[in-house]
Amino acid sequence: MADLGFARVDLDREARTGDPEVVYGAGKTPEQVAAILTALHAKHPERAVLATRLSPEAMAAARAVGAEVHEVARAATLGPTPEHHGRVGIISAGTSDAPVAAEAALTVATHGAAPVEIRDVGVAGLHRLLAVRDELATLDCVIVVAGMEGALPSVVGGLIGVPLIAVPTSVGYGASFGGLAALLGMLNSCAPGITVVNIDNGYGAGVAAARIVRV
Amino acid sequence: MADLGFARVDLDREARTGDPEVVYGAGKTPEQVAAILTALHAKHPERAVLATRLSPEAMAAARAVGAEVHEVARAATLGPTPEHHGRVGIISAGTSDAPVAAEAALTVATHGAAPVEIRDVGVAGLHRLLAVRDELATLDCVIVVAGMEGALPSVVGGLIGVPLIAVPTSVGYGASFGGLAALLGMLNSCAPGITVVNIDNGYGAGVAAARIVRV
Amino acid sequence: MADLGFARVDLDREARTGDPEVVYGAGKTPEQVAAILTALHAKHPERAVLATRLSPEAMAAARAVGAEVHEVARAATLGPTPEHHGRVGIISAGTSDAPVAAEAALTVATHGAAPVEIRDVGVAGLHRLLAVRDELATLDCVIVVAGMEGALPSVVGGLIGVPLIAVPTSVGYGASFGGLAALLGMLNSCAPGITVVNIDNGYGAGVAAARIVRV
Amino acid sequence: MADLGFARVDLDREARTGDPEVVYGAGKTPEQVAAILTALHAKHPERAVLATRLSPEAMAAARAVGAEVHEVARAATLGPTPEHHGRVGIISAGTSDAPVAAEAALTVATHGAAPVEIRDVGVAGLHRLLAVRDELATLDCVIVVAGMEGALPSVVGGLIGVPLIAVPTSVGYGASFGGLAALLGMLNSCAPGITVVNIDNGYGAGVAAARIVRV
Amino acid sequence: MADLGFARVDLDREARTGDPEVVYGAGKTPEQVAAILTALHAKHPERAVLATRLSPEAMAAARAVGAEVHEVARAATLGPTPEHHGRVGIISAGTSDAPVAAEAALTVATHGAAPVEIRDVGVAGLHRLLAVRDELATLDCVIVVAGMEGALPSVVGGLIGVPLIAVPTSVGYGASFGGLAALLGMLNSCAPGITVVNIDNGYGAGVAAARIVRV
Amino acid sequence: MADLGFARVDLDREARTGDPEVVYGAGKTPEQVAAILTALHAKHPERAVLATRLSPEAMAAARAVGAEVHEVARAATLGPTPEHHGRVGIISAGTSDAPVAAEAALTVATHGAAPVEIRDVGVAGLHRLLAVRDELATLDCVIVVAGMEGALPSVVGGLIGVPLIAVPTSVGYGASFGGLAALLGMLNSCAPGITVVNIDNGYGAGVAAARIVRV
Amino acid sequence: MADLGFARVDLDREARTGDPEVVYGAGKTPEQVAAILTALHAKHPERAVLATRLSPEAMAAARAVGAEVHEVARAATLGPTPEHHGRVGIISAGTSDAPVAAEAALTVATHGAAPVEIRDVGVAGLHRLLAVRDELATLDCVIVVAGMEGALPSVVGGLIGVPLIAVPTSVGYGASFGGLAALLGMLNSCAPGITVVNIDNGYGAGVAAARIVRV
Amino acid sequence: MADLGFARVDLDREARTGDPEVVYGAGKTPEQVAAILTALHAKHPERAVLATRLSPEAMAAARAVGAEVHEVARAATLGPTPEHHGRVGIISAGTSDAPVAAEAALTVATHGAAPVEIRDVGVAGLHRLLAVRDELATLDCVIVVAGMEGALPSVVGGLIGVPLIAVPTSVGYGASFGGLAALLGMLNSCAPGITVVNIDNGYGAGVAAARIVRV
Ligand SMILES: Nc1ncnc2c1ncn2[C@@H]1O[C@H](COP(=O)(O)O)[C@@H](O)[C@H]1O
Ligand SMILES: Nc1ncnc2c1ncn2[C@@H]1O[C@H](COP(=O)(O)O)[C@@H](O)[C@H]1O
Ligand SMILES: Nc1ncnc2c1ncn2[C@@H]1O[C@H](COP(=O)(O)O)[C@@H](O)[C@H]1O
Ligand SMILES: Nc1ncnc2c1ncn2[C@@H]1O[C@H](COP(=O)(O)O)[C@@H](O)[C@H]1O
Ligand SMILES: [Mg+2]
Ligand SMILES: [Mg+2]
Ligand SMILES: [Mg+2]
Ligand SMILES: [Mg+2]
Ligand SMILES: [Mg+2]
Ligand SMILES: [Mg+2]
Ligand SMILES: [Mg+2]
Ligand SMILES: [Mg+2]
Repeated sequence: MADLGFARVDLDREARTGDPEVVYGAGKTPEQVAAILTALHAKHPERAVLATRLSPEAMAAARAVGAEVHEVARAATLGPTPEHHGRVGIISAGTSDAPVAAEAALTVATHGAAPVEIRDVGVAGLHRLLAVRDELATLDCVIVVAGMEGALPSVVGGLIGVPLIAVPTSVGYGASFGGLAALLGMLNSCAPGITVVNIDNGYGAGVAAARIVRV
Repeated sequence: MADLGFARVDLDREARTGDPEVVYGAGKTPEQVAAILTALHAKHPERAVLATRLSPEAMAAARAVGAEVHEVARAATLGPTPEHHGRVGIISAGTSDAPVAAEAALTVATHGAAPVEIRDVGVAGLHRLLAVRDELATLDCVIVVAGMEGALPSVVGGLIGVPLIAVPTSVGYGASFGGLAALLGMLNSCAPGITVVNIDNGYGAGVAAARIVRV
Repeated sequence: MADLGFARVDLDREARTGDPEVVYGAGKTPEQVAAILTALHAKHPERAVLATRLSPEAMAAARAVGAEVHEVARAATLGPTPEHHGRVGIISAGTSDAPVAAEAALTVATHGAAPVEIRDVGVAGLHRLLAVRDELATLDCVIVVAGMEGALPSVVGGLIGVPLIAVPTSVGYGASFGGLAALLGMLNSCAPGITVVNIDNGYGAGVAAARIVRV
Repeated sequence: MADLGFARVDLDREARTGDPEVVYGAGKTPEQVAAILTALHAKHPERAVLATRLSPEAMAAARAVGAEVHEVARAATLGPTPEHHGRVGIISAGTSDAPVAAEAALTVATHGAAPVEIRDVGVAGLHRLLAVRDELATLDCVIVVAGMEGALPSVVGGLIGVPLIAVPTSVGYGASFGGLAALLGMLNSCAPGITVVNIDNGYGAGVAAARIVRV
Repeated sequence: MADLGFARVDLDREARTGDPEVVYGAGKTPEQVAAILTALHAKHPERAVLATRLSPEAMAAARAVGAEVHEVARAATLGPTPEHHGRVGIISAGTSDAPVAAEAALTVATHGAAPVEIRDVGVAGLHRLLAVRDELATLDCVIVVAGMEGALPSVVGGLIGVPLIAVPTSVGYGASFGGLAALLGMLNSCAPGITVVNIDNGYGAGVAAARIVRV
Repeated sequence: MADLGFARVDLDREARTGDPEVVYGAGKTPEQVAAILTALHAKHPERAVLATRLSPEAMAAARAVGAEVHEVARAATLGPTPEHHGRVGIISAGTSDAPVAAEAALTVATHGAAPVEIRDVGVAGLHRLLAVRDELATLDCVIVVAGMEGALPSVVGGLIGVPLIAVPTSVGYGASFGGLAALLGMLNSCAPGITVVNIDNGYGAGVAAARIVRV
Repeated sequence: MADLGFARVDLDREARTGDPEVVYGAGKTPEQVAAILTALHAKHPERAVLATRLSPEAMAAARAVGAEVHEVARAATLGPTPEHHGRVGIISAGTSDAPVAAEAALTVATHGAAPVEIRDVGVAGLHRLLAVRDELATLDCVIVVAGMEGALPSVVGGLIGVPLIAVPTSVGYGASFGGLAALLGMLNSCAPGITVVNIDNGYGAGVAAARIVRV
Repeated sequence: MADLGFARVDLDREARTGDPEVVYGAGKTPEQVAAILTALHAKHPERAVLATRLSPEAMAAARAVGAEVHEVARAATLGPTPEHHGRVGIISAGTSDAPVAAEAALTVATHGAAPVEIRDVGVAGLHRLLAVRDELATLDCVIVVAGMEGALPSVVGGLIGVPLIAVPTSVGYGASFGGLAALLGMLNSCAPGITVVNIDNGYGAGVAAARIVRV
């Protein structure tokens, strides 16, 4: 554990859980983000450290200490990406779900699995999803990202037998209540075996998927 | 208007709106239900009067004044069914949605359109829905009934171009919150042109559909 | 289907459902809005393409590719308006409901029906609504737009027999909870046959109404 | 103040506020209800004491100590009704609102004003309300009782200039959420000067109205 | 009724209800506010017209057409204040409730009653309230304004016998949920005869109080 | 730790925290309650073991293994009450709050402090509370129990300087939403230093108070 | 697909997803449960069919057609249990969580993995959880079942690196709101990689876990 | 009591409750904050006056009248800190909880007890908390500050026997709903004797803790 004054940084999470500590950028100053990235990288130079939910200022600070910035995912990585085992699909419903899907894909990649992105296949145009059915059959695990009514996981869940993690997004307006409608929809899915993470939590879905495919 | 003491019965709704007054059974005594059915039937003997949301006791009271009882729909009718114009599909997701679907179908029939019931075609087994696609193409309007995550209207809505009325049901548990999850899902559907009624309101959907196909 | 990289654009929705694909502007960059409008127009030059929920920047980008901008409705159209079949009333309660009513009216027009706007006839001054009763009688379908307590659909619904679509708006404060009060009011309307769309969803109401009057 | 062991009974509320203490029957045993009624009546034999929200058992216990029982209102009174000053209308939307309207009317009567009940004039059949407009003009204050969407106060509020107290009821199902929809509707009324009490609180509305007309 | 294009202005509300029409400034442009004020004043020059919920820009526009601006109340009046009948107390809990209390007081004054403001007497320092008990005894009606837990109406309600209107405010943070805690507290008050208006609705409370004291 | 098959009973909580393990009766069979009481008593015969939230059947089972049953508190104790240090007031607003207040008082007594019960001093009759002010001054800590609007803690909190724990109860109806109104009111109290426990959680308040006075 | 009139039974789910169709007993008559169990077993005699959420009557009906009944899990199986691959821990916080944990364990077993139950290790007595740390290290996946505040998954999640599925239960009272508190707690867990299913959904967690360990 | 026009300042709270009046900065102008600080300090120069929830402008105004500004806590003090009795731990889960923890610590210090801050010991890395167990054993009372799922108080509560006050923070996103998830988690804690304050209310927790340790 490294005590940076404002934070006790967990340097041995990998030993305990197999995953690296990840910097949660929200509510941290750009300086704090850069300092924690640096401290973690110093301890584990052989494997990429990840920082998520970065403001533009925090992205700049991360870049300044040598990190690679991923704009759409609002994230940064410092150090080499690990080797990939297993294929994780990241299937998203609409254009506006892109940042959450990108965060999930980047997390999958930094946690040791290969991300496969399939975009804009919302249920209101089913032919788009049916057109990628062969690709679905090659995946070891899928992350399904959707806002508004959050119906995509139910439909995908009926087509495949691999683990499926649903990510509700805050895309929508009015009675979507910031993603609540999608969240409730996914929790109540009639397709068996779907599990759910917090609204907009691409990171959490990515960690879970990577753990699953390395089982 | 007939004043029965406990109620002012609207005898001329048909002239005003084209639809008959319907007895809402919840919160009324069996005697009140029977009395209103009789009063409305006396005024309009040529066309069936409908009573919904009946307790077993109210069904018995309705039967005693000559009404036909519809068990699954928890409803009764008194008088001859009108001629039918237009075909309204009532598509339901699961076995437990049957009472709401039956109420919708009976309402459609008493309001002058032909109901066509298609059951148990939930989205988690898409092949069931795709198997009835030809039948869908023959309908003038569809009512889609679903509980839990309420995703069926979105999927049906992408397949057809006729008006679609979604009915959330209270089927589910936990975070379905008595039908709230399905209601929110339907209100946020990414399929355009879907309209929604209250949870378990098969009656309201039936009236709307019958009005639409007689336009 | 046209793959623009960030979106799979549905070019054949009209064949499937009779309606054109519509660009949902929220969460898209001005460039993306302009690109999708252009791609859809290229495929269907004979019929107006619609883009909704546009920021001022997206309106400018739409204008730059030749679209007509509709300020109050925060929308743009590219291509000629189709011929109109049927008359759809758009009845609104107050001055602040104007943007939602305008989005509904424009959607009706681009989806093939004639919009008839009736404004500022809220229920607290009933004489305003009773004064337009003759005009109501000429309509094939009505869209009723109201915020705050959302009572207008119940009152209009008792006066007419044509299909009625209620649109709750986010107009109000305090316990209106962003349109929730109006939404719940409309879902619980004691006037039969009212159907409801999402808060502020003039677009959805317009699509539904246009489908109804072309049945 | 009389200390009955389980309760400190407020014997001097009338001196302080002009109103008698009233026994709230919910959560009290029949014996407690009877004991408090008796204690209050002993202190104020010249003016009726009221007990509300009584179970059938509590009604029997009240009757046994000489009280008059009001079945529909689920209430009892012990002692003579006071003289009446002012006329309070109790206007209710539907048949199922009867218990709440009856509680309000009885409270008005025991607090010194004359109740005038007008029933079953819900907004979906406006002609019923317009038919009693002359009667409305004779009232000094109105209580409006409605469940479901709770729109009646807005409409009545536009027709009159006397104080209006709205009482939401728990009549409804699904998204009425036990009266929440009606409560929110009334709080957001666009008719000015409407005030609101708790769901099903006919008693509170009656006290307020009686205070108003004796001002 | 004057049709200004964007609004149907109700010129005869006074004849119908005894109160003037009031301009609700939220969601209106400064120009619209000024135009409606002017139209109403032209029709009723003998009595002040009121506009509420004004932005700084709308205040300036109102001033430019001759209106008097009331900064704390975020409101404007055009024309002479009417003669006052009856005394209405406006009792507020804390400093932050001032704008809502000021809106209520101004509304009382423009609707024909004398406002009496009593400030910063929250229940956590009861001696402050007990110190003004004599003043309370001189009032014909009270408006009680409070945020946070909204307990002040219950305490005042136990001390007086005149009508009491409670106004919850959005003052607070965290689990106050924008005034919801205060609203629920007031609706559930154990002091009898309290009625409630929407969160921050000083206007509505003022109209109700003025109607009460002129009964 | 004793493993009873269905439960791992914590025999050493007292060593760790100074408090005995307590049996939470809800969701346990009468046999399970009796078995755990017996196991805990065998280990700690010198100090009373407590079981709360007992059904009538569980009370009988407790009595059968030698426990003393406390009817109002719906609880049972087995073994001698410990010596008392410090005085904890349990102040309740109304008659219906008695079970929660009794649970709190019994918990205080079994956790080593002297309970002092003060009942039915709700804020709508302030004189009742002011009448016990001298008694309040003798307490080391107070628990304030109230349902409905939950205003009593704010008023008591302004009168005393000792720690105050507020317990919202589910007493109320309509918009009390099962105690939510009281809970939110207490969390938002403007009296400083009030802390809150779960709705109806007399037990939790009792443990906290006993810990405080033995500090 | 077998059409039983009231249901379209999915006979080929195993081919599509690797899992058997499972009978959801809630909202079905005992006869329907027995009929579907029989139909599925006839098609797949070599592998156990599962029925969940059974009433006592449905359990009897299942037993009558030859099924084995699992009382605590409120479930029944018909046919031989499949061979097991992988070990899934089912870790529960308290005694009252037993039915949900049992449903999860039975589902795991019928879907092809070995369940390992660890009970009553709630976070308020951390030593109980730390005592089973060695056993945790032998698991391929864990299901964590907890009600009330639902904190157990966060603590377990920090100790292990295998996939973790959290199941909130409806155990609790007051502000647990039927499991909502536990659900929100689990969705917001600060331990990375936790995924969540619906309240009380032991079945869904079991399917997901079995899929994960057979990846 | 000093009447500053906009506020009645409570000069004698200390005599009544032992605590000084504190200025709540939210919703006050910088001038008002400075004026109240000055008035209170003039009356009680021997003991620090505290102002909380200050904007940067209010901090500047406070500094200008001689107050010491505490940046992280967003607070200011004017006058000498009192002598300290008792040790209060302020244990926080993550870096983002710092402002709330700092407000609590400063309040403890100005109310007469010694604050001991322990930071960043969230439950997902239990070893961090176990590492400070000896320090925990020296405390007389603890305040536990956590956002997201708010699980830390349950874990700490199982380790200690002194009073524990839980402070939920608004740290989190999505289904944390502004701190609601943490608040509900803490209210439902299975560790006995935990009490809770409003979301982000470090001040309230500090007052309560200081009162406890001076008992
Ligand atoms: N985007 C994210 N969403 C949720 N949790 C995250 C995210 N990124 C990182 N985390 C978690 O936050 C922890 C770091 O929090 P902190 O110590 O405040 O930086 C990491 O160990 C992750 O468990
Ligand atoms: N204002 C609107 N509200 C809701 N849905 C809309 C709106 N405008 C367009 N849509 C829907 O959004 C779809 C396009 O979404 P996208 O592919 O993200 O542009 C359209 O096909 C419509 O179904
Ligand atoms: N501050 C306010 N809060 C609620 N309603 C208001 C307020 N001010 C005016 N109103 C109402 O809004 C109506 C005018 O609305 P509008 O026609 O949109 O200007 C008035 O007749 C009042 O009934
Ligand atoms: N940060 C805070 N959170 C909650 N209440 C506070 C806070 N700071 C001060 N207070 C309370 O607010 C009161 C002062 O309110 P006011 O008279 O509006 O300045 C103080 O007596 C405290 O009870
Ligand atoms: Mg799209
Ligand atoms: Mg099925
Ligand atoms: Mg208007
Ligand atoms: Mg009726
Ligand atoms: Mg103050
Ligand atoms: Mg009492
Ligand atoms: Mg236990
Ligand atoms: Mg950290």
